[in-house]
Amino acid sequence: MIKVGLVGYGKAGKAVATVLAQDARYQLCWIARRKTTEQTHLDGYPMVPLVGLDRCDFDNWFDSHPVDAVVDFALPETVYQYADALIRHRSMLVSAVSAYNSEQQAFLRQLGEVCPVMSSPNITLGINFLLMAAKMLRDIAPFADVEVVEQHFREKPEVSGTARKIASSLGLEDEHITSLRMGGIVGHHEVIFGFPHQTVRLVHDAIRREAFGTGVAFALQELATCPAGCYSFDELMMKKIRHQLLAQEQT
Amino acid sequence: MIKVGLVGYGKAGKAVATVLAQDARYQLCWIARRKTTEQTHLDGYPMVPLVGLDRCDFDNWFDSHPVDAVVDFALPETVYQYADALIRHRSMLVSAVSAYNSEQQAFLRQLGEVCPVMSSPNITLGINFLLMAAKMLRDIAPFADVEVVEQHFREKPEVSGTARKIASSLGLEDEHITSLRMGGIVGHHEVIFGFPHQTVRLVHDAIRREAFGTGVAFALQELATCPAGCYSFDELMMKKIRHQLLAQEQT
Amino acid sequence: MIKVGLVGYGKAGKAVATVLAQDARYQLCWIARRKTTEQTHLDGYPMVPLVGLDRCDFDNWFDSHPVDAVVDFALPETVYQYADALIRHRSMLVSAVSAYNSEQQAFLRQLGEVCPVMSSPNITLGINFLLMAAKMLRDIAPFADVEVVEQHFREKPEVSGTARKIASSLGLEDEHITSLRMGGIVGHHEVIFGFPHQTVRLVHDAIRREAFGTGVAFALQELATCPAGCYSFDELMMKKIRHQLLAQEQT
Amino acid sequence: MIKVGLVGYGKAGKAVATVLAQDARYQLCWIARRKTTEQTHLDGYPMVPLVGLDRCDFDNWFDSHPVDAVVDFALPETVYQYADALIRHRSMLVSAVSAYNSEQQAFLRQLGEVCPVMSSPNITLGINFLLMAAKMLRDIAPFADVEVVEQHFREKPEVSGTARKIASSLGLEDEHITSLRMGGIVGHHEVIFGFPHQTVRLVHDAIRREAFGTGVAFALQELATCPAGCYSFDELMMKKIRHQLLAQEQT
Repeated sequence: MIKVGLVGYGKAGKAVATVLAQDARYQLCWIARRKTTEQTHLDGYPMVPLVGLDRCDFDNWFDSHPVDAVVDFALPETVYQYADALIRHRSMLVSAVSAYNSEQQAFLRQLGEVCPVMSSPNITLGINFLLMAAKMLRDIAPFADVEVVEQHFREKPEVSGTARKIASSLGLEDEHITSLRMGGIVGHHEVIFGFPHQTVRLVHDAIRREAFGTGVAFALQELATCPAGCYSFDELMMKKIRHQLLAQEQT
Repeated sequence: MIKVGLVGYGKAGKAVATVLAQDARYQLCWIARRKTTEQTHLDGYPMVPLVGLDRCDFDNWFDSHPVDAVVDFALPETVYQYADALIRHRSMLVSAVSAYNSEQQAFLRQLGEVCPVMSSPNITLGINFLLMAAKMLRDIAPFADVEVVEQHFREKPEVSGTARKIASSLGLEDEHITSLRMGGIVGHHEVIFGFPHQTVRLVHDAIRREAFGTGVAFALQELATCPAGCYSFDELMMKKIRHQLLAQEQT
Repeated sequence: MIKVGLVGYGKAGKAVATVLAQDARYQLCWIARRKTTEQTHLDGYPMVPLVGLDRCDFDNWFDSHPVDAVVDFALPETVYQYADALIRHRSMLVSAVSAYNSEQQAFLRQLGEVCPVMSSPNITLGINFLLMAAKMLRDIAPFADVEVVEQHFREKPEVSGTARKIASSLGLEDEHITSLRMGGIVGHHEVIFGFPHQTVRLVHDAIRREAFGTGVAFALQELATCPAGCYSFDELMMKKIRHQLLAQEQT
Repeated sequence: MIKVGLVGYGKAGKAVATVLAQDARYQLCWIARRKTTEQTHLDGYPMVPLVGLDRCDFDNWFDSHPVDAVVDFALPETVYQYADALIRHRSMLVSAVSAYNSEQQAFLRQLGEVCPVMSSPNITLGINFLLMAAKMLRDIAPFADVEVVEQHFREKPEVSGTARKIASSLGLEDEHITSLRMGGIVGHHEVIFGFPHQTVRLVHDAIRREAFGTGVAFALQELATCPAGCYSFDELMMKKIRHQLLAQEQT
């Protein structure tokens, strides 16, 4: 059983907690969150406030509440608060924080020299698979026409970051992204490959926010078998299929 | 430009000829077919009848009409007719024949010791990609529920062989295949992965038979860069993406 | 603004309350529910317990909390509790109760002689539209092959009642229903019409339970313009389009 | 059995001939086409050239080759050539000509005073149903967000006329049409209705050009039961469902 500390308890963080709570392979041991309160527990978990907590405090908290992994859904700078504790305990880190600046990225790489670190702005398993599969088909059939279509709820303001990432990873101009805003669609992404005599569609439908939890669970499981190092979500997926790819080479 | 001899000129063979004729990378040099006729040309191509043609005759034909590759859409036993010529010319073979018996398979492997040989019962690029991608996602997320749905024209008698192959390669019982027969649907295959909080759909729609041609063109292009050996369609696809997979290992 | 009393406050009832609360055309005035409690309010609404409440009590409640409409998501027999009050106030009734027996149905018809009554076991707007549209296409093109496919979360035990209703309204045997159980799919229904040279797909995806609320809002809005009578959801939809259908007749 | 004369024998006309030939309810009796030739028959049908044929000649042709219906896939002005004959024989007309000018339209209306006339620029059954169903749902739920997506083969130059027609009939600006050009997609149209808590998709996939034939066959069958008059495809479809709509009014 992997013991987990969850840093960040917004909507995504809460959804991750829900998923981990239902999975016997994980034990959610504590929550660290920004919002200050007098409570010591939240939804049944011991809770520590991030604000006003210096590294030393976090070290103490960590010592009294040791975990095998920290899952981070908080702000970029939060990593500085728990890094020392993480290193001392040789715990692993799964970070879904999206906007690390270059200094913070360098800091993560240093962390990766001591601990297994996985950092990915989108931690949904299905979306990451879509990205990987689309890149593969693009390599195999660069002559196919490719379009990215995303559909989301009416209020979502911008082109989905996921759609942008898919397009850029396929070398597509933004004009090949179609964004439709309609009703209450949670999140629909589709990559369409038009061949002269056949069509391939890779489709992802998000059902609810808990999908982040499935991705975190996957990352924890894989990272637990990895040596110290910095990993992307892609690389953890590749690990599961590489044996098969290499096996084929020797046939 | 790759010079090609086409063995077998049924509906699939004809469709392949159409595609190769439109692609400047290939030159279709001759056709060999079962049906006997007094004509020496067919659709503008020199034609040789397969019936009554012994190995020696084929050798002569091949010498006077040399090609870099034979594409075979004929019957399993036809390989014996052109094998000698293929070996002498070190030409390559792309075979879409589906029902080789074990003796014929052994013969193909011998051929593969001298010539580059690709043999695959389904030579559609999109379907082969679907197979590969589905296997990967199955490896990555064995906990997801998987269903295979295929839809074809009303008269198609049995469960599609492709759907069976997808299911068996995913370790699924036949009860996870749904076959719908409706109107004039050319060929629709869908592999659905149901996760707790998201759904991934891999969808292939055949538009017309010429899709076989796209697969043949791909196989010829890839095989032309391969040493002698026996290859599956999968392996040719893998070759295009392996560099990327291995590159990531070293990061 | 239509004043509403909500009878039944299970998951569906709650979702309806949420939707009505966000729609300025409706005012949710009170809730009646089975579960007994000492509270007099629930989620901010005045609350009355159904258990132990006789007709007379309900009359008093209704007199002190008058509404234009009752929305019923409770048990079949509950209608007897509020019928007198409904009649005295000439309020309308929107009932989503599914299993009225023949006696209860007769009682509803009597109610319909005095009040506008809409009763439908499935009160989702999109599903009701799918049903109507599918019936129309079946009438127009009885020669097309038709299949009903439904996909729901892994735990859903039986064939979806909606799929059964679609199939029976189209005169299809149950063998033309395909039920797939996968992951966490909320509710996907698809009616596929296979023509010889084209395919039509009518697809409904439920996003969340609040979809019931959209149907209730629609029914209330339409029923408010109807004289006393018993209506199906279908008939309320038809009312919106009949003018257009009849207009065409006179061209 | 309905005897048919086919005017116009381009790709669409040919496809219609193929469908009628396979349907025992119709007998294709002759073809009139623009291209001049010395042949008197085409694909086994008696053939008359349109060029240089005046009304009088067409009358003679019609008298010696009488038909119950003319199906027109030719140019707008062609109607003037066969109108006299049509009137004298009280035959019916199914016209798929798309660009009648106002004078020609007036002429068609005059024809309709004597003969049953159906004129529709798009004669595909599925597309016409999509149009009708989308308009209904728009009337029922004007609050839903609506988007029209069409996908066609790479070379198709403009936004599909069908998509434009759907959008305009729904009162949507052109910016709610998405046109994707990819590979060899024959013709995919999708009207998506986004509700707050559910999504409805109406999807049409053309498989091949013969779909026009199915529409012609439907129109002939329905028109054969109509008095003289001018009809749209819509009205012929409505006829099949109106009885059901009106029946419900009396419940």
